Amino acid sequence: MATDTEQACFEAGIKFGSLYHQFAGTPVSPDSTRSLETAMAEAIENQPFCESVSVAIDDDRVADAIDHDNGYTELTGSLMTVEMRIEYEGVTARTRMEMDDGYPLMKLVAVDDEAGE
Amino acid sequence: MATDTEQACFEAGIKFGSLYHQFAGTPVSPDSTRSLETAMAEAIENQPFCESVSVAIDDDRVADAIDHDNGYTELTGSLMTVEMRIEYEGVTARTRMEMDDGYPLMKLVAVDDEAGE
Amino acid sequence: MATDTEQACFEAGIKFGSLYHQFAGTPVSPDSTRSLETAMAEAIENQPFCESVSVAIDDDRVADAIDHDNGYTELTGSLMTVEMRIEYEGVTARTRMEMDDGYPLMKLVAVDDEAGE
Amino acid sequence: MATDTEQACFEAGIKFGSLYHQFAGTPVSPDSTRSLETAMAEAIENQPFCESVSVAIDDDRVADAIDHDNGYTELTGSLMTVEMRIEYEGVTARTRMEMDDGYPLMKLVAVDDEAGE
Repeated sequence: MATDTEQACFEAGIKFGSLYHQFAGTPVSPDSTRSLETAMAEAIENQPFCESVSVAIDDDRVADAIDHDNGYTELTGSLMTVEMRIEYEGVTARTRMEMDDGYPLMKLVAVDDEAGE
Repeated sequence: MATDTEQACFEAGIKFGSLYHQFAGTPVSPDSTRSLETAMAEAIENQPFCESVSVAIDDDRVADAIDHDNGYTELTGSLMTVEMRIEYEGVTARTRMEMDDGYPLMKLVAVDDEAGE
Repeated sequence: MATDTEQACFEAGIKFGSLYHQFAGTPVSPDSTRSLETAMAEAIENQPFCESVSVAIDDDRVADAIDHDNGYTELTGSLMTVEMRIEYEGVTARTRMEMDDGYPLMKLVAVDDEAGE
Repeated sequence: MATDTEQACFEAGIKFGSLYHQFAGTPVSPDSTRSLETAMAEAIENQPFCESVSVAIDDDRVADAIDHDNGYTELTGSLMTVEMRIEYEGVTARTRMEMDDGYPLMKLVAVDDEAGE
């Protein structure tokens, strides 16, 4: 049987994998970054134990990724920073996706048990 | 070689398949329908020849589809109505996804050649 | 800084969310279940720390879910059972998705530290 | 009301958009290309009017796209060639996705009315 801390970390991972693979590939341009950020955050916040999600798509990186006349690119991890807070039975897990050595990494930033155990 | 009319219809289909398979499965609740509608429309409008997209997710149907304590469901075709207008070399294709006999259907509603040919 | 156990659980969750949201919505019929199972497992096994994935799509449930002349349905959690084993720095996390009270749940089944700590 | 030829082209587009946005983003390595090709083809062949789909993922391009220690990349249009044949009321539409000037394009290759009209 998993502990509450282990379960909190598992739930945090589920949300990250969900967000990424649901929305990666979405057509995006500097004109549509704000609406996509909001929709991604609000969609994943629906999931259980997910207290907050913030998504920041980098307009400059989106513009740089547009390599064709069409004027858009597809969303990938290298174009955004994501932060989430998961709460499971008093345990808080904070996660972040950011560029690390040129590659987007999903990181478990902090795990805190409110009871101080 | 395809005609402009055939190409317009092909492009119209691409947009519909894209919209559906990019966003189907997204967690959705009555609290997140508006942001998802906007993001879906703005994302697909990035694609070439796509002049306008409107997405209406039905809050009542979303509420009815929530069959669990979690308070959300996953987006499917039966929860939304979608309309698009594609313009290709003077040909306009109008499409619509709506419920038909209990099943969501993607329909090619009208194809108009501005030149009246 | 997260412990190895916490990180193993986080990685286990990522794989589950990824698998689900990458492949949910895929058109499926009893004729295409085997190829989809194999592709899902091999795709997610590419991800870091993911030692094994097994996917079993239930042909009978797929057949029952086909409610239209078209002869196919879309993949959802209620049609499959998934098991995964994640290995992170000597910690093994085992996960399972299965039906629970009519709803598909992603479960952290066991977390084992090889060092016996 | 759309003609059979227009409808055939629309259906051909739907299948292409579906295939692309369902599977783009899937983790892929040279070890998992064959199973992914098969699953993509069999999944989309489930859709109405879709007579045949062939997917060829280029192992060399996949290997070249792996830019990280993890040993995998994510499926994009630039890694594959896709061909489809759609049949709608005696009209055959053939489509192809291939690289064109460094960018993957979905093309309507030929539209044939069996009646020779």
